[in-house]
Amino acid sequence: MKWVRFAVDGEARYGFVEGNEVIEVEGSPFGEYQKTGNTRPLEGLKYLIPFEPKQFYAAGLNYGGHAIAKANAQGELPKLPTQADIGYRGNNSLIPHDAAICIPHDASERVQYEGELVVVIGKQAKRVSQENALDYVVGYTIGNDVSERTWQKGDRTIWRGKNTDTFAPMGPFLVTDFDLGAAQTIVRVNGDEQLRFDTKDMLFGVREFISRMSQYMTLYPGDMIWMGTDGKGENLGHGDVVEVEITGIGTLRNPVIREVAPE
Amino acid sequence: MKWVRFAVDGEARYGFVEGNEVIEVEGSPFGEYQKTGNTRPLEGLKYLIPFEPKQFYAAGLNYGGHAIAKANAQGELPKLPTQADIGYRGNNSLIPHDAAICIPHDASERVQYEGELVVVIGKQAKRVSQENALDYVVGYTIGNDVSERTWQKGDRTIWRGKNTDTFAPMGPFLVTDFDLGAAQTIVRVNGDEQLRFDTKDMLFGVREFISRMSQYMTLYPGDMIWMGTDGKGENLGHGDVVEVEITGIGTLRNPVIREVAPE
Repeated sequence: MKWVRFAVDGEARYGFVEGNEVIEVEGSPFGEYQKTGNTRPLEGLKYLIPFEPKQFYAAGLNYGGHAIAKANAQGELPKLPTQADIGYRGNNSLIPHDAAICIPHDASERVQYEGELVVVIGKQAKRVSQENALDYVVGYTIGNDVSERTWQKGDRTIWRGKNTDTFAPMGPFLVTDFDLGAAQTIVRVNGDEQLRFDTKDMLFGVREFISRMSQYMTLYPGDMIWMGTDGKGENLGHGDVVEVEITGIGTLRNPVIREVAPE
Repeated sequence: MKWVRFAVDGEARYGFVEGNEVIEVEGSPFGEYQKTGNTRPLEGLKYLIPFEPKQFYAAGLNYGGHAIAKANAQGELPKLPTQADIGYRGNNSLIPHDAAICIPHDASERVQYEGELVVVIGKQAKRVSQENALDYVVGYTIGNDVSERTWQKGDRTIWRGKNTDTFAPMGPFLVTDFDLGAAQTIVRVNGDEQLRFDTKDMLFGVREFISRMSQYMTLYPGDMIWMGTDGKGENLGHGDVVEVEITGIGTLRNPVIREVAPE
């Protein structure tokens, strides 16, 4: 099932994507639902983020590729996480497919994309095993973890480096059937492919994060986990269009604007 | 005004505290409200957390006393934050007044309290000045930022060190009139005072955090900021009762239990 959430006359609605059409649905991925008779074309849809998240968790550094390559080049040992310690983020930064990433006027040029798999919790989870962890997942979507690198590095926390308004595009779809083992994550800027990696190459997988988090914390329907990215992103600037595709889910596309400094 | 939120037959209700009575209110601190004719005794009330928070922000290290004393004793310069960089936390950890802090069986003995002022946002804020920042505050409550020090220090993030279920008692009241300049924060364990400090002695104040955060991020009604703590906490163990009083707000009291390790 491929869910989409969209606005009609300022009101949020859910639907299923089938081909180039959206079939409207009463209900949501988190409870009962049924198809209505209404359909509309996918083209021209005003996308919303695919659901209103409760807690926004993020794995942070969770792919070894970039860290290992960089360390090897410098003749050093890579510093990789030794356990699945989860991080925290702000829902204020979320925007849907098609909405603009707005870079503040005082940001540096080092504003970069990070294409990430987003895991959405559908059922309350406490102390679940790795074996059963996926029973608590309702679906998957795509996130672009836009990061201002000087703030990320220079501030005491990653508050504005990663949580500035508009810095977390998410969508366009929430899919319930997803083959992580077969998926690739691809990032394109202005149509040119800049990055491609196997989505499964995580240091700690979805099962490991859900099981470990749930040993101490209750996970609730609507919580989500951004699973990290691989490779090295490039800078985004005014007028760029950035796309994150995860095969089997879809393509999240957002234009970029840079705010003009006040006089 | 002193708001309280409580459960009747499993349903959440708001009220005002006047003396030893609660006057039931239709509505909430975040919108329209009016008193009903119903009153009930404060004694025996089943407290809920004073509101359902949206984003849980935390200042982290925000009082100099302890850091400076410790550094001075070692002939070092204290490492204090140089700007108001906010941190992030999880709502899963919240419990109300009277509910038990439950220490997991695999926690160390170093589980400690942190008595904190909690600032509650009542109005959407973006790029507000320090001068106007308090116009966006609907009220204040009390938080106990329970922390497992070995996890806090040893893990890559503070996820379970500070966000384990039950590690964030909050309440009992949300007060709209509060004199920060006159307030003291007092922590008692089993009735014995262990800590007392002037609540105002923050490195970065409420106005500074709200204004600075809002330069990059939209603050929404129901967002809250835990403002940090001073002094050095002591360990909490099974059977203890910990109280955090902030004068002018009230006293947040929670028993402590330690989970028995499975066979």
